[in-house]
Amino acid sequence: MQTITFPYQQLFTFTENIFRCIGFSEENYTLATKVLLQADLRGIDSHGIARLSGYVRLWEAGRLNAKPNMQVIYETPSTATLNGDTGVGLIIAPKAMQIAITKAKQCGTGWVAVKNSNHFGIAGYHAMLALEENMIGIALTNASPLVAPTFSTERLLGTNPIAVAIPALTQEPFVADFATTTAANGKLEILERKGENAPWGWLQDAEGNITTDTQARKKGGALLPLGSDYEHGSHKGYCLGAIVDIFSAVFSGANYASWVPPFVSYLPLPQNPVGEGIGHFFGAIRVDAFRPAEEFLKEMDNWILRFKNAKAIEGKKVLIPGEPEREQEKLRIQNGIPLMPSVIEDLKQLAEKMKVDFLS
Amino acid sequence: MQTITFPYQQLFTFTENIFRCIGFSEENYTLATKVLLQADLRGIDSHGIARLSGYVRLWEAGRLNAKPNMQVIYETPSTATLNGDTGVGLIIAPKAMQIAITKAKQCGTGWVAVKNSNHFGIAGYHAMLALEENMIGIALTNASPLVAPTFSTERLLGTNPIAVAIPALTQEPFVADFATTTAANGKLEILERKGENAPWGWLQDAEGNITTDTQARKKGGALLPLGSDYEHGSHKGYCLGAIVDIFSAVFSGANYASWVPPFVSYLPLPQNPVGEGIGHFFGAIRVDAFRPAEEFLKEMDNWILRFKNAKAIEGKKVLIPGEPEREQEKLRIQNGIPLMPSVIEDLKQLAEKMKVDFLS
Repeated sequence: MQTITFPYQQLFTFTENIFRCIGFSEENYTLATKVLLQADLRGIDSHGIARLSGYVRLWEAGRLNAKPNMQVIYETPSTATLNGDTGVGLIIAPKAMQIAITKAKQCGTGWVAVKNSNHFGIAGYHAMLALEENMIGIALTNASPLVAPTFSTERLLGTNPIAVAIPALTQEPFVADFATTTAANGKLEILERKGENAPWGWLQDAEGNITTDTQARKKGGALLPLGSDYEHGSHKGYCLGAIVDIFSAVFSGANYASWVPPFVSYLPLPQNPVGEGIGHFFGAIRVDAFRPAEEFLKEMDNWILRFKNAKAIEGKKVLIPGEPEREQEKLRIQNGIPLMPSVIEDLKQLAEKMKVDFLS
Repeated sequence: MQTITFPYQQLFTFTENIFRCIGFSEENYTLATKVLLQADLRGIDSHGIARLSGYVRLWEAGRLNAKPNMQVIYETPSTATLNGDTGVGLIIAPKAMQIAITKAKQCGTGWVAVKNSNHFGIAGYHAMLALEENMIGIALTNASPLVAPTFSTERLLGTNPIAVAIPALTQEPFVADFATTTAANGKLEILERKGENAPWGWLQDAEGNITTDTQARKKGGALLPLGSDYEHGSHKGYCLGAIVDIFSAVFSGANYASWVPPFVSYLPLPQNPVGEGIGHFFGAIRVDAFRPAEEFLKEMDNWILRFKNAKAIEGKKVLIPGEPEREQEKLRIQNGIPLMPSVIEDLKQLAEKMKVDFLS
């Protein structure tokens, strides 16, 4: 499919205008735009501007509060729980991370659980906020159920990502950001649009048999936890997804398991919710929490260089987590962001509906 | 292979005697025995009494201090770093977890990094110590390099396990404890002894090609990170192993990557060490760190019941992490612990060498 490339700044202005139209404050529409488009810059196209119309539909359905009154509802010296007041995850998450950072300044570490939120963009963005403060950042979120635990035929977990950002002295930071499934849902959407099969181990059908049919998700099937099947450790992927669900939602009082509300507004909210909205979990750890800062940062340099210089399979190299996304970001800031025709069409319709000029 | 079953108490007394012989204090030989045999009770045979003679050989080689002077060398309100003084990981880890618990009582959470340690048994034991205090427990450790990061032909990571224990109100606790590789090294050892091939995706050869030859580990090959290959998410398993390595060793000042010292005393220590011993990382989180304790525990019950009662593949059921090990523990306390002939032979030789009666 032929993509068309748009300058970052043009997409930025358009997205700001849309968020302004639905009533975000100036501070919030700029922040929400920055967080959302970070996904496009880093090459995680499924989590960026492609979701903009989805946020607007959530707002139209009364499931997203444009002027939330976020409040810390519970705390200890190193922890806090934030009620996001049904605001957009894109602004709730940086606020929560800020609280974690403030706690870490006092206690060495800070930990914030969030309820009553929704999709927060890419987890990596929030984890990376800690880097600016010379801290290690952690961001987790649960998400609507697409994944079957090992041996289950029901979807009970989201793709529940884990992001960990760790600064170094002279090297670029280590930034891991990954779904706890074998494959990202976005990759499956692309295969489905092309009419291609998925590789073995990404999906199961309604009876729990592994299938390569990308349509399986629409016929009662599910994504598989990292590991694919029991023989290849899918119970470990299930453990990871479960830990993210519990830390994000059982800690905070958000919905978990099959009760997590869907991002898409055309699906009904689950009956008998067990909490409020979706949940996130954030952590900030001072680089001098366990040893003097310079010692830690110097060893991180050495760790990174050891892995970078590892002997590799012919024609390949060992990557440091975050390297490919950083490369992508450099390229896309310079050359612009390629959008799929279907995304452009969706944004045009959004522009018309909201009476905003499309990318003018 | 025919196993012979021994009563738990008999193995306990024998192991205590061995640890006493090499100079452990009364408090420490009982504790080390309890931790070590917890692996046998929970069915993780590779990490239990089968390793006893290995600890003794480490002591003989002067790499294990029977009377360590463990000291907190750095701290903040919610964190501490413990120098294990080359003691046995089996006693250093519970000590570190105790410090994390004490910190959590003050701050809501407590986090302890450890250097200058060695093998600590099963991670799950240490995470579960938090349950007794109505806390969530976390335990990580690095280990000698057996695993190749994605695209690497070098071994740079250990099987680096993650354990997370979470209490509930009336339900048994959630206890995840898993290596960040596709398969446990212990399973490969069993296949190798039987002369059988490994499944696809567990191992690579010296050139980085996936192989089913269990001998590959001895011919320059490596274990694969959870996910097996790039198409199935091995870069995520690599991220997990890397995070465990950094939290355990770069935080604390232990050795990381290819510098982690081997457990077996016949292998030389790596040249130019970057730290001291191996590293661990522990966390304790009060159940009332984010919301009132009873609310949290009640929701955990509900989370567990939702997954327990999930619709399952015919003939299977969805397990809660920790369930199989708990079943095993009940059975083995009652019926005894089965040992392989090779382990029995090894223990007999150890008994003779140490002039301790073998299981009398």
